Amino acid sequence: MGRYSLGLDYGTNSVRALVVAVEDGRELASRVHNYARGEMGVITDPANPHVARQHPLDYHEGLEASATGALAAAKAADPAFDPADVVGIGVDTTGSTPIPVDEDGTPLALLPDFHDNPNALAWLWKDHSSMAEAERITALAAEHRPHYLARCGGTYSSEWFFAKILHCLHVGADVFDAAYSWVEFCDYIPALLAGDTNPDRLLRGVCSAGHKAMYADDWGGLPDKGFLSMLDPKLADLRDRLYTKAHAADTPAGKLCPEWAAKLGLTPGIAVAVGAFDAHMGAVGSGVKPGCMVKIMGTSTCDITVGARGEAAAEIPGVCGIVDGSVLPGMLGVEAGQSAVGDIFNWYVLQVCQGDNDLHNLLTAEAAALKPGQSGLLALDWNNGNRCVLVDARLTGLLVGQTLRTTRAEIYRALIEATAFGARAILERMAEYGVPLERMVACGGIAEKNPFMMQTYADITGQTISVASSSQTCALGAAIFGAVAAGVYPDAAAAQAAMASPTSATYTPDEGRKAVYDELYALYRRLHDAFGVAGASEPLYDVMKTLLDIQQRSA
Amino acid sequence: MGRYSLGLDYGTNSVRALVVAVEDGRELASRVHNYARGEMGVITDPANPHVARQHPLDYHEGLEASATGALAAAKAADPAFDPADVVGIGVDTTGSTPIPVDEDGTPLALLPDFHDNPNALAWLWKDHSSMAEAERITALAAEHRPHYLARCGGTYSSEWFFAKILHCLHVGADVFDAAYSWVEFCDYIPALLAGDTNPDRLLRGVCSAGHKAMYADDWGGLPDKGFLSMLDPKLADLRDRLYTKAHAADTPAGKLCPEWAAKLGLTPGIAVAVGAFDAHMGAVGSGVKPGCMVKIMGTSTCDITVGARGEAAAEIPGVCGIVDGSVLPGMLGVEAGQSAVGDIFNWYVLQVCQGDNDLHNLLTAEAAALKPGQSGLLALDWNNGNRCVLVDARLTGLLVGQTLRTTRAEIYRALIEATAFGARAILERMAEYGVPLERMVACGGIAEKNPFMMQTYADITGQTISVASSSQTCALGAAIFGAVAAGVYPDAAAAQAAMASPTSATYTPDEGRKAVYDELYALYRRLHDAFGVAGASEPLYDVMKTLLDIQQRSA
Repeated sequence: MGRYSLGLDYGTNSVRALVVAVEDGRELASRVHNYARGEMGVITDPANPHVARQHPLDYHEGLEASATGALAAAKAADPAFDPADVVGIGVDTTGSTPIPVDEDGTPLALLPDFHDNPNALAWLWKDHSSMAEAERITALAAEHRPHYLARCGGTYSSEWFFAKILHCLHVGADVFDAAYSWVEFCDYIPALLAGDTNPDRLLRGVCSAGHKAMYADDWGGLPDKGFLSMLDPKLADLRDRLYTKAHAADTPAGKLCPEWAAKLGLTPGIAVAVGAFDAHMGAVGSGVKPGCMVKIMGTSTCDITVGARGEAAAEIPGVCGIVDGSVLPGMLGVEAGQSAVGDIFNWYVLQVCQGDNDLHNLLTAEAAALKPGQSGLLALDWNNGNRCVLVDARLTGLLVGQTLRTTRAEIYRALIEATAFGARAILERMAEYGVPLERMVACGGIAEKNPFMMQTYADITGQTISVASSSQTCALGAAIFGAVAAGVYPDAAAAQAAMASPTSATYTPDEGRKAVYDELYALYRRLHDAFGVAGASEPLYDVMKTLLDIQQRSA
Repeated sequence: MGRYSLGLDYGTNSVRALVVAVEDGRELASRVHNYARGEMGVITDPANPHVARQHPLDYHEGLEASATGALAAAKAADPAFDPADVVGIGVDTTGSTPIPVDEDGTPLALLPDFHDNPNALAWLWKDHSSMAEAERITALAAEHRPHYLARCGGTYSSEWFFAKILHCLHVGADVFDAAYSWVEFCDYIPALLAGDTNPDRLLRGVCSAGHKAMYADDWGGLPDKGFLSMLDPKLADLRDRLYTKAHAADTPAGKLCPEWAAKLGLTPGIAVAVGAFDAHMGAVGSGVKPGCMVKIMGTSTCDITVGARGEAAAEIPGVCGIVDGSVLPGMLGVEAGQSAVGDIFNWYVLQVCQGDNDLHNLLTAEAAALKPGQSGLLALDWNNGNRCVLVDARLTGLLVGQTLRTTRAEIYRALIEATAFGARAILERMAEYGVPLERMVACGGIAEKNPFMMQTYADITGQTISVASSSQTCALGAAIFGAVAAGVYPDAAAAQAAMASPTSATYTPDEGRKAVYDELYALYRRLHDAFGVAGASEPLYDVMKTLLDIQQRSA
């Protein structure tokens, strides 16, 4: 075929562009652009540790730099490559990352009046300043619209669309009032490329609309005005300026506009697909299908699978979202995840140990030399709250079992184990609700770089885990949808069959280690419930003693 | 008067000799000898983290080196000083640190047959390998001799005499069988100086005999043979080779023998006082009396006060020991303590942060710049178990409240606060049982060196705390008893009045900080009970959330 698709993958700290051959998914070249502003792209507030924002200019600059860089690199890698052979563009971003925009769809942060206003920035997924609003939405929905809540795991999160907008209304009324509409990051970029960001016209993706904006076709789209007006009448008014219909990522969002075609060196008019969240695209790039769960493992972790309509449970408590078409068109997308994984190890190494990447490697090697249970330690992986299955940002980390001999490598291992226990809790919840699981595919930096951690995940979850060969499954997934939007393939499944990543390393659970981890996991669950479940009253007197017993046996 | 007393203070890592003027307690000179063997004097077992032993040769070598060094330094400091003016010697040591000895009182470790046998060494106070035996003793006493248990806080500790001896019987029967008797470290040194270590003749101190060997005059000395035989018939047999009467430290243990007089350059025949534990002597050196509690703050912490017979409660649950004459003759000595304080900060700085003493200073400065509650953290101070008020070695550390922004200085502060919460728990228990408390005097390295920590203790306990001017209150207390044994003073109170240390800095609680700490302490108590009290079933769901609330208010 000799044609190409461009996948754009906007992460938390950088954006990556990937040039992919539509014939076989071969990755020709890629380029990463690191955001220039804030701390690695994240604009924080010294007075409020929960604030995490981004500047839309970083998105614009990153778009041009990464795409032109990737195209140039593709040309360098293969002199036969011609940017004119790029037939489609797919986009994924972090989310829920809503951006307040004016009537033209211009982010308020780009207007002089709001130049210095942090509330006018993009509200990054990991901004947790809206915890009170999330609790209010959860409480109101529990009372008046339980069906909204059931679809998003039982609890609305401070990371999501309406919590953030309501918080803006509370703390930044000037921005709220000036915003004609709010647009998800992943919808904004395709609209920008298509040359029309008008909020009333741009196509919204169902992936972001899904549970994060409580959108569902079966209840008429977004939450009804009666519900929103209970939160605030202004929020109900805003509903008229949002959208009524959301689309899967195989839908063309528009055609590449001449202005951006010129900036990027591409052909005007090529297809731009509707955007989606990075994890969902990563799942597609990793070959997600019914029975296959994809774990995208990085600073945080997403667990994505799909189920046939009518077969998979439409509602699973504590599993963040089940949305029709959010991953693959025509299927229920099932999304769970952990709000911090790599971030916890980074916190420990950078902040506590004041080390660097070499220390990650050293501690991994030292941790790998230990046996399960040998440290006597047990941790909860909640340093950034718990996304699933508790859906509670107001939870924090915990470490128990320290003695005067506890080493820093033991703590590092306990933190790794804690994230794997959290992963197991999600798998068990899905299994309880009949989500089929025959294989797991992991992708992302940790999956590639840390065999010890992957083996630990296999041992703790009892699942065989393969690692996707591609290092950029999110961008690859975006490129797959770029190819579908361009009409190269009849549907996403066909494009996936041709283009999705193969797998490389495979990790199989060790029964001996799993037996010890089963004991530790039982203790993890008791701490999990004691600190994380309202009304729980768990006797914990034996926890420290049982850890000492396990340690003694492991020695 | 122009006369002097020599105080010998055997600590965990070193021994100090102090030359004191008996007239006014002036400290003429001192010398420290660091033990040569093991890790800073502590011989450990890589296969069992609970083992902590010491070699008696370190005690012999340290005696000669520290005493001759101090006497030489005294001569250098004051050319008028003459070693012939030393009229008495007092001794304190760590404890319970029992030593297996032969019929002559020679430690088995000094015999060729047991040269390499770790069980033949001195069993250092912080050796926790006897946890199972301590639990067995507690269980048996609870059933058959509850009065034994009541005097030692309700739980017999793995740090104590009979638990260690019974463990030796279980794991090192060769040593147990070869031991004619077992002698406490603090009784061995005076006997050595007096030239007669014969176990049947040497005088045992009531300070070590007291609750640690379950000795009390009112039940006829040591535990009865019926009780001991329930533990093991061999233990009952051993009772005949222990002792029937224990003595307060104002009793002369003997006269300095010619051999040691020659080694040390002192006059043969001067008085050697009965030995006692370091903390008890430190309390005496710091001026302990009814209404005044002395906190000896170092790697671990001891809280010592005294009460008039018949007025102070003779039994306080969870307060390790109340022993007649253990501190001051004729009064009830009340002893509590925390099994790790400075050791926890050292563990964190050395093991986790891999820093040094400079890092202690840096983290102290950074921690001091924070406000109470600002970190969102809460810790339990149980990295070395809990001596009071839970009396349970099988407890471990806990840290809760970590986020991705938690700094290492915040953790350092949380650990300091945790030890102060533990100190408060002890004070509250004593207050419940009517122990009068009008003032606190702190001594030891931490009290002198860390004003931030002392202020935090004042804020958290709500008590005004003065710091003893003397840096060697333990050796000073020993010297006070050396003077009494020599007949310089009619009793310990008179000697104390003349010789005990004045105080320097005073720390007063800040009401604003105390109010925040009261909230944190309430949470500490709930974690304390949930993990530390059998049968407790404490709801903990709000703990992380309340910490976040307090943090928010503190910002």
